[in-house]
Amino acid sequence: MRQARVACFGALHDAWELPDHTLKLADGRIVPQSEVVWLPPVQAGTVFALGLNYADHASEISFQAPKEPLVFLKGPNTFIGHKSQSQKPLDVTYMHYECELAVIIGKQAKHIAREDAYQYISGYTIANDYALRDYLENYYRPNLFVKNRDTLTPIGPWFVPAKDVIDPMNLRIRTYVNGALKQDGNTSDMVFDIPYLISYLSSFMTLRENDIILTGTPKGTVHVHDGDVVVTEIEGLGALENIVIDDEFNG
Amino acid sequence: MRQARVACFGALHDAWELPDHTLKLADGRIVPQSEVVWLPPVQAGTVFALGLNYADHASEISFQAPKEPLVFLKGPNTFIGHKSQSQKPLDVTYMHYECELAVIIGKQAKHIAREDAYQYISGYTIANDYALRDYLENYYRPNLFVKNRDTLTPIGPWFVPAKDVIDPMNLRIRTYVNGALKQDGNTSDMVFDIPYLISYLSSFMTLRENDIILTGTPKGTVHVHDGDVVVTEIEGLGALENIVIDDEFNG
Repeated sequence: MRQARVACFGALHDAWELPDHTLKLADGRIVPQSEVVWLPPVQAGTVFALGLNYADHASEISFQAPKEPLVFLKGPNTFIGHKSQSQKPLDVTYMHYECELAVIIGKQAKHIAREDAYQYISGYTIANDYALRDYLENYYRPNLFVKNRDTLTPIGPWFVPAKDVIDPMNLRIRTYVNGALKQDGNTSDMVFDIPYLISYLSSFMTLRENDIILTGTPKGTVHVHDGDVVVTEIEGLGALENIVIDDEFNG
Repeated sequence: MRQARVACFGALHDAWELPDHTLKLADGRIVPQSEVVWLPPVQAGTVFALGLNYADHASEISFQAPKEPLVFLKGPNTFIGHKSQSQKPLDVTYMHYECELAVIIGKQAKHIAREDAYQYISGYTIANDYALRDYLENYYRPNLFVKNRDTLTPIGPWFVPAKDVIDPMNLRIRTYVNGALKQDGNTSDMVFDIPYLISYLSSFMTLRENDIILTGTPKGTVHVHDGDVVVTEIEGLGALENIVIDDEFNG
């Protein structure tokens, strides 16, 4: 059953989707989806993001696919929920959506073997890990300036339990801008697959409950503009809607 | 008054240092320092770490000083308190201590002007941001593998309120290994000073209460070995003691 975190009736609630698409709160109340503020479905611990983890996307932005996972951390300032606005800095021309499968860790562990990796996943959700390509990273400047902006990582709407996702390495992954299909890939094209990533990260650090791995995006990123409605969708996980707005407050 | 977070009597406590160096817990009990487990003095939000922020250290490890702050994030898995053990991976030869002034943000803000920056600092502490130089970062691999290891960022012992630190840009900063002075610098030698760093980071993201900036280390890093006692000390902030042990559990 798909689970969300929402704000309504003056408080925060866990909520579950009913067959008629209304939300059932943990206290039993039923509320239409239109009457809540959607929050990120998980209160994230450490958030790992992958660069260039689909070979077709790496070649699209003129990079070789990396020989080891290109992993960087993201701070909690960047996350917002479903149906909210991402602020595009006024001086930025090349802001790209990036539809990504988000893997949520279920329990603390180190040295996880590849063949055991799926046992350590509690569930999945969708992330849109926007990048500001005007400020491409270089040797002396990691991804912070490009990737750690307020509001630039919508995530959700649902936490989908791992048992409900039969094969996470074979999910269609798509992005629509104003209703037009712009990105259409499959998680099977990842350079480093989910078991590899969990094994790699846990080889040098302890993974914990609610740590999240954003597994990278396939090709098909284009830049977005003020007013664009961006829907990132993953087979079985739902569709995450986001609106791009010029950032009037931070010119 | 110097403040700590400790575990004793089966619970967590805020504690303050009395003139006789005993600790007074928030509930009024007095306890000797030797009877507590020291925890990191702040429950950190986003943690920013600076690379190459003292020009003499950059030249020591054969890098040019960067033209913009080289900032990366650190995860909560890396932090441990005063008087605890840092685990040195068995395959690592070049593990270096890095004594650093840690700046703690006191309130949420964006677009902080350099001249206002000190108003947003709640206090200071000491961090030892160990690096595993065997795995030096490269273009495709940010600092995660080098810097995000469990137990490799001792921090503390004290949270020292900002009002008690007269000039944070003129503090002697020293490291002793087994009692011998190995690193002896001054925060006045930072490439990007504290107001610059706060202004820079808040120019593209919101800083929040208990976010921490680790401001880099001066020259004088040497590698450490199993059994070494490493004391990092900053004028007015105290001395942070840490013991290096070979990581028998993660060979």
